[in-house]
Amino acid sequence: MAAYTPPLDDMAFVLHDVLAVHDSPLPGYADLDRAFTAAILDEAGRIARDVLAPLNATGDRQGCRLENGTVRTPEGFRRAFELLRAGGWTSIDCDPAYGGQGLPYVLHAAVGEMHSAANMAFAMYSGLTHGAYTAIHAHGSDAQKAAYLPKLVTCEWTGTMNLTEPHAGTDLGLLRTRAEPQSDGTHRITGQKIFISAGDHDLAENIVHLVLARTPQAPAGVKGISLFIVPKYLPNPDGTLGERNALSVGKLEEKMGIHGNATCVMNYDGATGWLLGPENAGLKAMFTMMNEARAQVGMQGLAQAAGAYQLAAAYARERLQGRAIPPADPASPADPIIAHPDIRRLLLDQKAFVEGARAFALWSATLIDAHMRAGDEAADGLVSLLTPVVKGFLTDKGFEATVQAQQVFGGHGYIEETGISQFVRDARIAMIYEGANGIQALDLVGRKLGQDGGKPIMAFFDLVKSFIRENESDDRLKAPFLDPLKAASKDLQSAAMFFMQNMKTPNAALAGSSDFLHLFGHTCLGFMWARMAKAALAADTDFSRAKLATGRYYMARQLPATALHLARIQSGADPVMSLPADAF
Amino acid sequence: MAAYTPPLDDMAFVLHDVLAVHDSPLPGYADLDRAFTAAILDEAGRIARDVLAPLNATGDRQGCRLENGTVRTPEGFRRAFELLRAGGWTSIDCDPAYGGQGLPYVLHAAVGEMHSAANMAFAMYSGLTHGAYTAIHAHGSDAQKAAYLPKLVTCEWTGTMNLTEPHAGTDLGLLRTRAEPQSDGTHRITGQKIFISAGDHDLAENIVHLVLARTPQAPAGVKGISLFIVPKYLPNPDGTLGERNALSVGKLEEKMGIHGNATCVMNYDGATGWLLGPENAGLKAMFTMMNEARAQVGMQGLAQAAGAYQLAAAYARERLQGRAIPPADPASPADPIIAHPDIRRLLLDQKAFVEGARAFALWSATLIDAHMRAGDEAADGLVSLLTPVVKGFLTDKGFEATVQAQQVFGGHGYIEETGISQFVRDARIAMIYEGANGIQALDLVGRKLGQDGGKPIMAFFDLVKSFIRENESDDRLKAPFLDPLKAASKDLQSAAMFFMQNMKTPNAALAGSSDFLHLFGHTCLGFMWARMAKAALAADTDFSRAKLATGRYYMARQLPATALHLARIQSGADPVMSLPADAF
Repeated sequence: MAAYTPPLDDMAFVLHDVLAVHDSPLPGYADLDRAFTAAILDEAGRIARDVLAPLNATGDRQGCRLENGTVRTPEGFRRAFELLRAGGWTSIDCDPAYGGQGLPYVLHAAVGEMHSAANMAFAMYSGLTHGAYTAIHAHGSDAQKAAYLPKLVTCEWTGTMNLTEPHAGTDLGLLRTRAEPQSDGTHRITGQKIFISAGDHDLAENIVHLVLARTPQAPAGVKGISLFIVPKYLPNPDGTLGERNALSVGKLEEKMGIHGNATCVMNYDGATGWLLGPENAGLKAMFTMMNEARAQVGMQGLAQAAGAYQLAAAYARERLQGRAIPPADPASPADPIIAHPDIRRLLLDQKAFVEGARAFALWSATLIDAHMRAGDEAADGLVSLLTPVVKGFLTDKGFEATVQAQQVFGGHGYIEETGISQFVRDARIAMIYEGANGIQALDLVGRKLGQDGGKPIMAFFDLVKSFIRENESDDRLKAPFLDPLKAASKDLQSAAMFFMQNMKTPNAALAGSSDFLHLFGHTCLGFMWARMAKAALAADTDFSRAKLATGRYYMARQLPATALHLARIQSGADPVMSLPADAF
Repeated sequence: MAAYTPPLDDMAFVLHDVLAVHDSPLPGYADLDRAFTAAILDEAGRIARDVLAPLNATGDRQGCRLENGTVRTPEGFRRAFELLRAGGWTSIDCDPAYGGQGLPYVLHAAVGEMHSAANMAFAMYSGLTHGAYTAIHAHGSDAQKAAYLPKLVTCEWTGTMNLTEPHAGTDLGLLRTRAEPQSDGTHRITGQKIFISAGDHDLAENIVHLVLARTPQAPAGVKGISLFIVPKYLPNPDGTLGERNALSVGKLEEKMGIHGNATCVMNYDGATGWLLGPENAGLKAMFTMMNEARAQVGMQGLAQAAGAYQLAAAYARERLQGRAIPPADPASPADPIIAHPDIRRLLLDQKAFVEGARAFALWSATLIDAHMRAGDEAADGLVSLLTPVVKGFLTDKGFEATVQAQQVFGGHGYIEETGISQFVRDARIAMIYEGANGIQALDLVGRKLGQDGGKPIMAFFDLVKSFIRENESDDRLKAPFLDPLKAASKDLQSAAMFFMQNMKTPNAALAGSSDFLHLFGHTCLGFMWARMAKAALAADTDFSRAKLATGRYYMARQLPATALHLARIQSGADPVMSLPADAF
């Protein structure tokens, strides 16, 4: 049941027919001709299919074990991690100055979807390392970069993010971990961090913890938080490993899913740490990592949906049960359940989401490249606006899609043997970590919407409007794709307008924030589907006809959700705020 | 974390202030004055809180074990089952001729919610037994009733339903288990059944399997299925247990949840069985049991949501994180998260669902009483129409509510220690078993909607219209409750009309069947909320004010979903049917 088929045709379609990466003037994109991206993605897909997917159930069943203070990963994870390293899959978009391949981020993102779909718990070890790489690359001193980046690029060492404490999750201003400055320029870190993914394991010789803590004179709240590099083993000046740092695994958590990834309580008992970036500016530095992590987590939502959908579609083609109208196979005692309308509905909800989300995630990735490689500030503004949507919408809907995939299996879906339950259980975390989706909605409505005088959201509306204007004369697009997109975009504008008109009652916006995130997400996927439809119309193949049919499904049956979200938003603060806390 | 508070005030409100059971002319309802129902529910709630809830996590963690062919239930289950039996909780509404208490079914349903909320896996053992009791009571010979009912009423023996086979789940016409008639009037049953809940265990001395099988000359398909009583131990004429029957547990399934209930593969190797009801009419007999089981499963969806909601609300009152606008507690470093609009949204979605669903389930239960106790055929028609809605809507939405409850916990929700993940994992099965929710939708649209010339659905619309008409002059009800209810009811009528206008393309109805079920479910809950609002307006207490605020939330933020479901239904068959099966 662990079979995984890399979505190579669909990725090629999105990258080349929709996003036209091969025509982009962005630095590094000149390499991205069809043959090149196909070669990379084909090989990455092979690893996903042949190496990672077969270990997915193993990881779930065996989980990680804490033995004498060290975490042991499930059977086969070490060997797979070595293969990942040996193939250079950890360094695709990393800086060549530190051993990276310097390819565009969009390729890293596409590879990330496949590896995460095949084995999410496994892919997190290198995913978090990439985040640590990004934070040190952006904020580290030359010496820090030289000491850590080459090791992180190759995943000889892996990385973690240490934010949460038992009493401080979303509200990092409450955190208490202390950092005492030492005469040698280091700090001694003391405190407890929880929910540390990949906090310990046996896949790498060293683990580089990035830890948020307070220095003695730090101001209260979020303005007094600094970021520290706290390695498991202190590196010697020559790059070899020195003594063990004063940190340990307090506990390995038992979780609903991602059993193959070690979620640790980490205890820091006067551990040696080095300040990363300026004192008291740790949250900003950590957010460099968080934004990337959020995009990755959105990709996990999509990836789990994609993996689960494949299993469900395969099962629906094989499982014979009941009679369709007209019978699909009169010679057989029953029809494959894929012939039944309600099973098709379940599958099309998943398929239309997965393909729309894939285009959305890869489009966002090209915007990240535009900012990182060409300093495009407008692209950065747009990415900043879209990041909470990518994270929140793709993980909420991705989880829903895994639940729908499980439903296709009927009773067999509830049995662990089938493998589909793992996708549901694994996908569930993505709605929670790296900022629970409610926090994404708060970020979107409270910060990103009004950011830079509203320029990014206006830029988004302009993109949609221009696309509609340019293609309105094409009847094949207008009624099935552009009209619904226009309606969705209008709902999104009405919602934004409602928030602006109610600026004096912030709770009116906050009460509608999650609905706004979903309204925005649907509009983005509607936009993507309109763009994909246009690209699909350029050909007349089985692929393009399927693409158009799937797109019409999204526009007809999913996109109308924008009106419901708008109605909820416009109901304002009162329905949400009027019940006293003790009456719940 | 396993704390459970029985919703006694809310049940009393629904039973007496909304449904006025104490004023009902139905046989047996004269007993149901407030003091009597309070005494019963208080004691049932005490068992739920003090006995069953503390075993919920134990059951999940330990699961069942198969030892030498016999299933061992988790620690404490035996003792709790004895308490259940001793208190008479298994026989509330059973026939006094066989040792039952003869109380109305509505009381059994209310008790069932609490026991299921406290420990769903445990409550299934007696729940399935009640189903077996019902089937034998309705279809058994006098001798069969005398031999089995007294034992099932007390749960000295428990019952199971054996329908599914590896290749035959939804499509029972495909089943292959054989029943060979013997000269002594018995049959020899041979075949394999899967997903048999409570298939074996150590809670009772005997297990009465009701097994669907085919006799040698049976016609093909569903018209050739007969139902058999196949006990684990053959009863002697004096009621003592005789020899072990030729049946065994082939396997104990590893599942996503309900670990405390034994889901078994059952092998019948020439086991002795007795025909229950006429030959070849087994499906009809089994459906007596299935309809009751479906109502119970709908109750499980509600119950899991209710249990999860309680944990989430308690956590949200305690957990301090972030600042609300205005601050809820300026003296503390942070506010309880229940002060934040998006957390309130999550909680109110759950609370408004749970209370609306409770009223809906108990109202349906009174209709079952009206049919069973007073032969009210109109009530039976309505129950028959509403059963797929109770099962499908309450389990889909109940599951969603548990996911929302988990989300309130943030990262702590993903850790098994917190206990909330179990509600999500347990609730998931309710969308699948006793007919997956897609089958409920098919039953609703394909059978129930047109049943008896459409009388039941017209009766439903009449009830809603009359209620609106009678109360429209009350301004406190009109805008917040009656107008939204009228809009929802209109959407439901438009959807029914769309199906009638498209009778020649059945796939248009089937493609919209799940949306119709949800549209119907929302309308039912909207109707219940309008009725509850009316009842709440008769008092001015904290309880009634909270009830009204919760109801306004449902009408403003949940009920508008009917328009989305209608839009999807009206998009017809084409979006769902046009993609070829091999293009998925």
